[in-house]
Amino acid sequence: MLTPALRVKLETVKKLIRKNAKNSLQRVLDKLHPADIAIIIKNLNELDRKKIWDAIEDKSKIASIILELDDSQLIEFFEPMQPEEVALILNEMESDDAANILRLFDQDKVNEILKYMEKDDVEAVEELLHYPEDSAGAVMNPNFFALHEDTTVKEATKVLHKAEDVEMVFYLYVIDDAERLVGVISLRQLILNPPDKKLKEIMTTDVISVTVDMDREDVAKIVEKYDLLAVPVVDENRKLVGIITVDDVIDIIREEATEDIYKMIGTTDDELLLGNKAFKIAKIRLPWLLITFVGELVSGFVITFFQGKVHEFAILASFMPLVMAMGGNVGTQSSTILIRGMALGKIDKNELSRFMFKEVRVGMVMGLIMGILLAIFAPFWHGDPKIGVVVGCALFFALSFAAFTGTFVPATLIKFNFDPAVASGPFISTLNDITGLTIYFSVSLLLLSVL
Amino acid sequence: MLTPALRVKLETVKKLIRKNAKNSLQRVLDKLHPADIAIIIKNLNELDRKKIWDAIEDKSKIASIILELDDSQLIEFFEPMQPEEVALILNEMESDDAANILRLFDQDKVNEILKYMEKDDVEAVEELLHYPEDSAGAVMNPNFFALHEDTTVKEATKVLHKAEDVEMVFYLYVIDDAERLVGVISLRQLILNPPDKKLKEIMTTDVISVTVDMDREDVAKIVEKYDLLAVPVVDENRKLVGIITVDDVIDIIREEATEDIYKMIGTTDDELLLGNKAFKIAKIRLPWLLITFVGELVSGFVITFFQGKVHEFAILASFMPLVMAMGGNVGTQSSTILIRGMALGKIDKNELSRFMFKEVRVGMVMGLIMGILLAIFAPFWHGDPKIGVVVGCALFFALSFAAFTGTFVPATLIKFNFDPAVASGPFISTLNDITGLTIYFSVSLLLLSVL
Repeated sequence: MLTPALRVKLETVKKLIRKNAKNSLQRVLDKLHPADIAIIIKNLNELDRKKIWDAIEDKSKIASIILELDDSQLIEFFEPMQPEEVALILNEMESDDAANILRLFDQDKVNEILKYMEKDDVEAVEELLHYPEDSAGAVMNPNFFALHEDTTVKEATKVLHKAEDVEMVFYLYVIDDAERLVGVISLRQLILNPPDKKLKEIMTTDVISVTVDMDREDVAKIVEKYDLLAVPVVDENRKLVGIITVDDVIDIIREEATEDIYKMIGTTDDELLLGNKAFKIAKIRLPWLLITFVGELVSGFVITFFQGKVHEFAILASFMPLVMAMGGNVGTQSSTILIRGMALGKIDKNELSRFMFKEVRVGMVMGLIMGILLAIFAPFWHGDPKIGVVVGCALFFALSFAAFTGTFVPATLIKFNFDPAVASGPFISTLNDITGLTIYFSVSLLLLSVL
Repeated sequence: MLTPALRVKLETVKKLIRKNAKNSLQRVLDKLHPADIAIIIKNLNELDRKKIWDAIEDKSKIASIILELDDSQLIEFFEPMQPEEVALILNEMESDDAANILRLFDQDKVNEILKYMEKDDVEAVEELLHYPEDSAGAVMNPNFFALHEDTTVKEATKVLHKAEDVEMVFYLYVIDDAERLVGVISLRQLILNPPDKKLKEIMTTDVISVTVDMDREDVAKIVEKYDLLAVPVVDENRKLVGIITVDDVIDIIREEATEDIYKMIGTTDDELLLGNKAFKIAKIRLPWLLITFVGELVSGFVITFFQGKVHEFAILASFMPLVMAMGGNVGTQSSTILIRGMALGKIDKNELSRFMFKEVRVGMVMGLIMGILLAIFAPFWHGDPKIGVVVGCALFFALSFAAFTGTFVPATLIKFNFDPAVASGPFISTLNDITGLTIYFSVSLLLLSVL
């Protein structure tokens, strides 16, 4: 987000680069927040960007700027670098951040980089890389703050003094002899209690925690539900192995929403990594287009099938786009609201049939209204009131059925534990084109023969 | 989210209600987190739900459960109540939460309820209701924790002791004589400093803050960017008037994402408030269907226009669904990626032309591949290789143009500071149906005449 204040700073930076005023540039950069520098860098060309990196000598500052970049910018940044250079920067990061960046490279490059990293870091990073990408284990920070239950408040405060490099401490996690998580204390409780009390006397024992193998989306839901600032991650023996902080949860929520939106249009958020590479992006989007291709060929067969059967085909054809497009809309509305409702936890598995019933009623209401509108309009165009009644009725049935398909298909997938997003936008539209045209022509044919 | 553990508790609660064991029910409810009770309530029928409310006598506990409910459940809960009953519960809430609930009622009911609320609360709530719905002022908590700059660490710790009802204190905000925000101290800094130091000696003066009139989405972006736990809200004189905490930011991010998804399918998140009221939900969705209706009538005109002009119309008609549906897909892909990219701050206003150029290239790649596929397939169906070349070329042009429309329309809206979401799903699909069919028939007509 380029705010007006930041735009001024961007112009200053550009001017200093143009003047080659390296010292002034360093001073300006020193005063800026890493997140702001990341935005400025995003708005520079490649050459100027290079000069910024050269002006910052402190590797840890570079590391914190890099953490604010998008994945596609990260790839662009690290691409020309040698493994040892990459390792130098990753050494300055928390192991969870380093692991997240390493996930962007292929296995060979990762192995190369790990060779040059500090030994302690390598172990932690390798452990993290071991967890599946969307699990709590993969997003957690293994560098947490935990104290034994027998520690006193005074000792705890002292340890807190020393642990200045552990970021984002809001809670003190309390562990027993076996490193199992047994309690939690907020910093505030620590302030409010006398120095000689032991942690186990003042800690809350009812700790909300997550397991390493839990899906990150469920972790986000728990943090959100209980309004936590951080959630501890435990392994199968309840041993504390990491924490996930609320800032990571915000990223998860943004990314999951983006993922959902991208699924709706038939692509994945992998394309964000590809920058401007048109061929590779096209490759990600093509599968859904292929499904549409096949489905719409079937729609074509439906059309040619009825071409010979209906005397008034030429007239009916003029409303085909309307039937197809509106059926697609109605179906996509229903399916999207179902899928999003599930993602938000607003719709439960056992409410699916009630939800379907509601959506079909909504579809019928909309079908009725649009059908009447069409019945009124059509005679003005084609001169025959009978045509109006015919196409109006056909539209009503097509839209009602579209709402049914839009909920039935994802609901069935959910029932059988498949990902309902398979039934997103393009699929439902295509399916509704086929059924919509079939219903439209069948109902029209039937009505034309009896009216 | 009904976890297995919670499902067990739900069954227990149901059993106790069936047995009419009020005391046991109270004991079970006492031990549950308000967020869990909210989920259990969601899974009960109306009668059982009523019994739960009756079993909880503590109004403040009811208030905290209510805060975990969806807006639609809130409406359902408060609907049968008298204004004085509503006021009793709202009195137990923070004024920002009370104001958020009051926003769900119409003005008359709000005035009635305010009459019965405590006087202090009324003032705070009325002030909050005064801010526009999506502004920082409307989402902030005016009940923050601020101390004068001359306070010592020791005094601050003492005040912290007493202020147990101020929730979620992570930072101490420091103000001057005029109540202007001059600094911030984290709880951790407070612990790490000697008791006799004054706050102004240890505070960070470079405080990141937002203004009351800032859009809540921008507030969320700032909290996200700087990894804050809370952000102070100041008025035009830099007077501290409230804070926004990270848990509210998470809600904002979820709601904004839902809003965006709903815009894509041509509805608004207002329908979430309407429960199962099919007619009212249909009313919200109908505007986009009406636009589709008009647009697709134009598509119908295009078809009838070419019906008389092209000798091979019957053959071309069989590929119409394919051209329309794939054009709609490609256009919606491009427009959605643009709109989401802007929402995430990944695309800047000055990058729009580069983005458009990329999307058109992606569209051309996909058009080329799908065009070739169609050129290969079509002769098998219609027996004439010439038809394959004709429809393949036509498809290529239609899809390339669809990617152009999908970016050009929202990009133009953005350039002129309109909401690009107007160019979402249904609009782009409809526009692409009209242009797609026109391009398809024109190119086919041209090629048929020269080949």
